[in-house]
Amino acid sequence: MQMAKVSNFHAIIPAGGIGSRLWPLSRASAPKFLHDLTGSGQTLLQDTWDRLSPLAGEDVMVVTGADHASAVADQLEQLRPENLILEPSPRDSTAAIGLAAAVLEHRNPGVIIGSFAADHVIHETQGFEVAVMEAIEVARSGRIVTIGVSPTEASTAFGYIRTAKPISGFDSALDVVEFVEKPSIAKAKKYFSKKDYLWNAGMFIAPAKLILEVLAETEPALASEIQDLAQQIAKNGFDKASAQRWNGLKKIAIDYSVAEPAAKKDLVACVPASFEWHDVGDFASIAELQSQGKSGNLAVLGQAKVLSDSSSGILVSENDKLVALIGVEDIIVVDTPDALLVTTKQHAQKVKGLVDSLRATGRDEVL
Amino acid sequence: MQMAKVSNFHAIIPAGGIGSRLWPLSRASAPKFLHDLTGSGQTLLQDTWDRLSPLAGEDVMVVTGADHASAVADQLEQLRPENLILEPSPRDSTAAIGLAAAVLEHRNPGVIIGSFAADHVIHETQGFEVAVMEAIEVARSGRIVTIGVSPTEASTAFGYIRTAKPISGFDSALDVVEFVEKPSIAKAKKYFSKKDYLWNAGMFIAPAKLILEVLAETEPALASEIQDLAQQIAKNGFDKASAQRWNGLKKIAIDYSVAEPAAKKDLVACVPASFEWHDVGDFASIAELQSQGKSGNLAVLGQAKVLSDSSSGILVSENDKLVALIGVEDIIVVDTPDALLVTTKQHAQKVKGLVDSLRATGRDEVL
Repeated sequence: MQMAKVSNFHAIIPAGGIGSRLWPLSRASAPKFLHDLTGSGQTLLQDTWDRLSPLAGEDVMVVTGADHASAVADQLEQLRPENLILEPSPRDSTAAIGLAAAVLEHRNPGVIIGSFAADHVIHETQGFEVAVMEAIEVARSGRIVTIGVSPTEASTAFGYIRTAKPISGFDSALDVVEFVEKPSIAKAKKYFSKKDYLWNAGMFIAPAKLILEVLAETEPALASEIQDLAQQIAKNGFDKASAQRWNGLKKIAIDYSVAEPAAKKDLVACVPASFEWHDVGDFASIAELQSQGKSGNLAVLGQAKVLSDSSSGILVSENDKLVALIGVEDIIVVDTPDALLVTTKQHAQKVKGLVDSLRATGRDEVL
Repeated sequence: MQMAKVSNFHAIIPAGGIGSRLWPLSRASAPKFLHDLTGSGQTLLQDTWDRLSPLAGEDVMVVTGADHASAVADQLEQLRPENLILEPSPRDSTAAIGLAAAVLEHRNPGVIIGSFAADHVIHETQGFEVAVMEAIEVARSGRIVTIGVSPTEASTAFGYIRTAKPISGFDSALDVVEFVEKPSIAKAKKYFSKKDYLWNAGMFIAPAKLILEVLAETEPALASEIQDLAQQIAKNGFDKASAQRWNGLKKIAIDYSVAEPAAKKDLVACVPASFEWHDVGDFASIAELQSQGKSGNLAVLGQAKVLSDSSSGILVSENDKLVALIGVEDIIVVDTPDALLVTTKQHAQKVKGLVDSLRATGRDEVL
């Protein structure tokens, strides 16, 4: 029996990206979304599925790397085979979401799609549902609708959405003037002081057809390839020839190919979100999420036995070893079977550089 | 063939103590002296043996816990069975060294003994040999002779020896006025500013008979038990009855039972040492020893693959895991199969308290 759901709506979860700043927990073979980073007992991907189920039922499509086929299938029992697209290689978000949109439009013309990252954290599911429900209704009026999160600080880690006047006929939807890339701290402070700048949480809801039409204008060659591939893979997934075509697709973020151009054409709306949203991009943000803003806390993920004396930060462990922390503040310790990371919250962003240097020196066995 | 050696001299290595401040590397089952803490490729016990060989040949006795019998025998191929005393339980240094002295005096009346800790670090072996050679000659004149190390800082971690006028007939030997316990920082600074206070490196050289005579005066019951036990265990080691007697011996450091009382009787001399001496009591001192005083260095003991970005301190690893350290200064990381310690050089001394709390809570499996 299928759950009650919003009619003619299909969710998409693009589950790509390794999460380099979460090395050595997040790996090419076990990226961020396959981990429980909140201590919920479920992985981020499972949490995302559960958040979407009340809205989309089992109409949720996952687009992920071919390497993760069995892990994703194991984690999502309700995922139907025709709703799993296995990318032969990563080709960025336009290819991933564009292909899903084309497959779904082909399957069900006029469908409204909603794209939601596999690795974000939202605890207030009711607020999420209310926002997405409204976004679906706005999308039905022929718009690409983003969910905008009210900034809680002058963050330089996220892009912003500049909103304008309310759209009549809806509870809270606003026109979008433009998307703004991750700002400098000075600009972030300016945006934070104003009411019209919201965080771009990377969620958008739109008619699949509208996404494909905008793409056909901005990237006609790519759009055409995607439409062809959607027909070819609809039944049996990628064969050798279609994989080769996929591997040749232009890599471009959907922000540049669709969202920003659509905003210029006044085709984008924003539903402001009342829920807390977390992009757990690095261990510092996981530590903050875990400790619920209480400073001086030590967050622990995993089964380690922990002895902490005057220590704070986060310990992530993939074994049941005893871990003793003495007098280390804002520390990050991540212990896995083949790699150990010790750094501080202050340097959490530098983990990506370390992963890059490991890749550059051919140390792929630990990536 | 035995090496050339000083005649009628027998060395003793009391190898007791776990080295709690070096947990989780140092354990009840594998204490400090069984580890390579200098990166020399040998354990501290093997280094101690090699330092004594030119002076004592194979006349080196090891007094250690029964649990360490096979580890010690494995590490010291030249150790003769009759020179290994296996304590049924730890009874402090008077029992350990007193028993060795009694066994050796019984075996070879008039022998000069020298006691040297199993876990100290001395790189300048020639300076060590010169000092011990002189100490042996002074001991033959009927004195208990300590080796005094010239302080290189106002340390509060060591006891001090207060010396007086030179003893005529010897190169550098001085009278000892008194032993001073680990001082306050104010006193340590005063001692450091004077020439007559030397560090007590815990080494002493004396006629075995003299040690036993002083002990007979200060601790007559203990001395008598030790003499009896020496006769009983001389041939076959501890049997059940002698082990029971041993387990009932008074626990007292030889500093209190012999050295200090002898100093009061003007029986103690000191040979000042020209060599560098290190009591690697905690990970901070190992880090300093390894980095040879160069600050900002990261010392590494073990086979770990290390990636360090702006990090300093020490990494000790018992596996070949990749360890990445980012922006952690004066850090101490010790990774063993069942326990991981993360602290800083500043808190290195607190490791003992942690071990104490593990013991108090019955976590003996990791001690």
